[in-house]
Amino acid sequence: MFKKILIANRGEIALRVIRTCKEMGIKTVAVYSTADKESLHVRFADEAVCIGPAPSSESYLKIPHIIAAAEITNADAIHPGYGFLSENANFSKICKEHDIKFIGASHDMIEKMGDKATAKATMKAAGVPCVPGSEGILKDFEDCLKTAKKIGFPVMLKATAGGGGKGMRAVWSEDKLENAWESARQEAKAGFGNDGMYMEKLIEEPRHIEIQIVGDQTGKACHLSERDCSVQRRHQKLTEETPSPFMTDELREEMGNAAVKAAEYIKYEGAGTVEFLVDKHRKFYFMEMNTRIQVEHPITEMVVDHDLIREQILVAAGVPISGKNYYPKLHSIECRINAEDPYNNFRPSPGKIVNLHTPGGHGVRLDTHVYSGYIIPPNYDSMVAKLITTAQTRQEAIHKMKRALDEFVVEGVKTTIPFHRQLMDHPDYLAGNYTTKFMEDFVLEAEVEEED
Amino acid sequence: MFKKILIANRGEIALRVIRTCKEMGIKTVAVYSTADKESLHVRFADEAVCIGPAPSSESYLKIPHIIAAAEITNADAIHPGYGFLSENANFSKICKEHDIKFIGASHDMIEKMGDKATAKATMKAAGVPCVPGSEGILKDFEDCLKTAKKIGFPVMLKATAGGGGKGMRAVWSEDKLENAWESARQEAKAGFGNDGMYMEKLIEEPRHIEIQIVGDQTGKACHLSERDCSVQRRHQKLTEETPSPFMTDELREEMGNAAVKAAEYIKYEGAGTVEFLVDKHRKFYFMEMNTRIQVEHPITEMVVDHDLIREQILVAAGVPISGKNYYPKLHSIECRINAEDPYNNFRPSPGKIVNLHTPGGHGVRLDTHVYSGYIIPPNYDSMVAKLITTAQTRQEAIHKMKRALDEFVVEGVKTTIPFHRQLMDHPDYLAGNYTTKFMEDFVLEAEVEEED
Repeated sequence: MFKKILIANRGEIALRVIRTCKEMGIKTVAVYSTADKESLHVRFADEAVCIGPAPSSESYLKIPHIIAAAEITNADAIHPGYGFLSENANFSKICKEHDIKFIGASHDMIEKMGDKATAKATMKAAGVPCVPGSEGILKDFEDCLKTAKKIGFPVMLKATAGGGGKGMRAVWSEDKLENAWESARQEAKAGFGNDGMYMEKLIEEPRHIEIQIVGDQTGKACHLSERDCSVQRRHQKLTEETPSPFMTDELREEMGNAAVKAAEYIKYEGAGTVEFLVDKHRKFYFMEMNTRIQVEHPITEMVVDHDLIREQILVAAGVPISGKNYYPKLHSIECRINAEDPYNNFRPSPGKIVNLHTPGGHGVRLDTHVYSGYIIPPNYDSMVAKLITTAQTRQEAIHKMKRALDEFVVEGVKTTIPFHRQLMDHPDYLAGNYTTKFMEDFVLEAEVEEED
Repeated sequence: MFKKILIANRGEIALRVIRTCKEMGIKTVAVYSTADKESLHVRFADEAVCIGPAPSSESYLKIPHIIAAAEITNADAIHPGYGFLSENANFSKICKEHDIKFIGASHDMIEKMGDKATAKATMKAAGVPCVPGSEGILKDFEDCLKTAKKIGFPVMLKATAGGGGKGMRAVWSEDKLENAWESARQEAKAGFGNDGMYMEKLIEEPRHIEIQIVGDQTGKACHLSERDCSVQRRHQKLTEETPSPFMTDELREEMGNAAVKAAEYIKYEGAGTVEFLVDKHRKFYFMEMNTRIQVEHPITEMVVDHDLIREQILVAAGVPISGKNYYPKLHSIECRINAEDPYNNFRPSPGKIVNLHTPGGHGVRLDTHVYSGYIIPPNYDSMVAKLITTAQTRQEAIHKMKRALDEFVVEGVKTTIPFHRQLMDHPDYLAGNYTTKFMEDFVLEAEVEEED
């Protein structure tokens, strides 16, 4: 087993990893930027090394500084957390060259899954369903029509140079295709000077449902069921839950098997997540694979009674997995508490937390690196806490979340607590009836003054 | 279901009950003494009624004030928590007379179990093993010898008027009995002016192991396995765990069945605890029954995935239980964090908490009513928090407890955190090798100055 692990990250995930290391009797090294010297991850680690000033490019992304910190402190492994260098193939490779175990995917695994086209081709080869579409650019309208007929309506026409919805058309039937083809091409030409178009199947009422997997060094993998992460704003997840209210036992079996097949096909080592889009007919399509721990991993931990950071460390140390899959025994929800003003377009609200009171009791878990008096630096993402509630049923978990949010006091900065509180009363959320489009229609009610 | 529940208690248990009521959509009424007006249970309840000054006899024990508060606020049920009026037969009766549901045992059930002699006789009749002993006062030495032979050595001779160990003799063999009989009687005569003696079987290396039960209004009961509460100081529990490291599957089955038999024999309604002494041969003996929720109930909740306060409320509302028993799927430990100075004979340390930082993360639960700036009043028991850790194995739960204790910061008052921290490193505790005598030999190490 490792003697000392350096955590190449900050905030709650750095603290999260340190906690499990402590519980496993492994020494820890924190690295930190000058902006983070008062952070709890620095205080709770056995050793801490300052690796540079606030901009991430000068510290948390500065590979030579991190490797130097590991060598100085004699760390035999590095845990990259999420974000920063966690999916940097070069970093994984440099760690290996320095004989430091990277607790994550290997260099070529990250490269394989990091490039979308390569990832999709690999998954196709593994027999995992991908969003059907054209093979690259459509040659002409004849090719367009042939492709549409092959993959079936509705389809999306997309400008290869496109962005922001321009040069994009949803087409629901054959008779509308030619018009759409012409107008999208004109728009793309005008907008980007490039009228190259490609086609994908339109995913109706898409849900973002991901499967947690763990693979070991023998090439064996297992899954730990799904997380529903469809409540997103600008592709940022806001709240997640497991099991997905949309899930059936059959679909879980199918998706879980597909994810395990994918992981075993590429001999994946470590914890990873296979993200799928699921349409209203419960057809699922590979979206991407994250070769690292996810922000929302705690909800899986709560329903399968496992510590995923521990699993990462064990697997990295060469311990084989049992190979059996894990199924949710409870229901768990996570709300990401960000220092953002939900009433001002979720604008970041850094600054000093002058008073903090955290919720507790039965079924409540809180992962946070902040404390009363902590100053949230403006340099990093704005997440200050992950609030997780777990209960026998979805309804109970929601009720628990409501009361926990009501208990949560953060004074001095704005947070997304009022947003989550309203979400937990939203009829569509309560009905489990939401897709990735959910937030487009979400109207935040007026801020309620707290009762005295 | 109840519309509004009044909680006739204070501190963490009042907050505990309020939390579950909120989750169940039931309104809550807090009652409080003038000393408790800044307590969280007052802030988090829907309504709060001041019921008198600090001495409990003037507020939390003042039945007319509590009944008045319930009538004014239209509460249809009262939850008594633990301590105070929770096992007061008269209070249970008065609630019933006022048509307010007492969420606890009925008047005659409390009376039956509250009197030790009656409780023991009832349990004997139900076929539950009790500590064998003489039928009242021993007539003479002949009676003494006959009784000793019947119940088997070792035995305890006890002065009926005794106390503080005086007039008490442990006797391990027949040849030592007459000497002990004479000297104990002389000591009792000299000490209390009364040489009446009785005899009980001596329980060797006793463990305090209790079974959690729940009974419903149909007379059906189930058990939720055991809690080991042997780590006690002057009969005050300090830390508890489940499963007991001393337990076997067979013994759990036997003890669980005995507790269910006892509960069903008396048609017990509500959550209750049957406390047993277990000797080194794994023979168990009924000690007493608590007709209320226990301080240490959360560890059971964590390993069987149930909310016991919710169960209490459901059963009180007439919902029948399933009848199946619950077995621990994980290991859970509770440390009672008291505002006491472990280096000064556990002397209470009331006062202002000037800084509070609470532990969190995977497998950590905290039940507390205190916050940064809270002033612990000197009038009540000194428990300020219950820290509960839960994991796959006992060893992991202990490691989790150690790191959670290390994270826990309470400034301004002394607490028992350093005691628990040392306990978690004690070789006998680690080996699960402890009895109710454990604390007699426990030597607290010198206080360690916190590293900078």
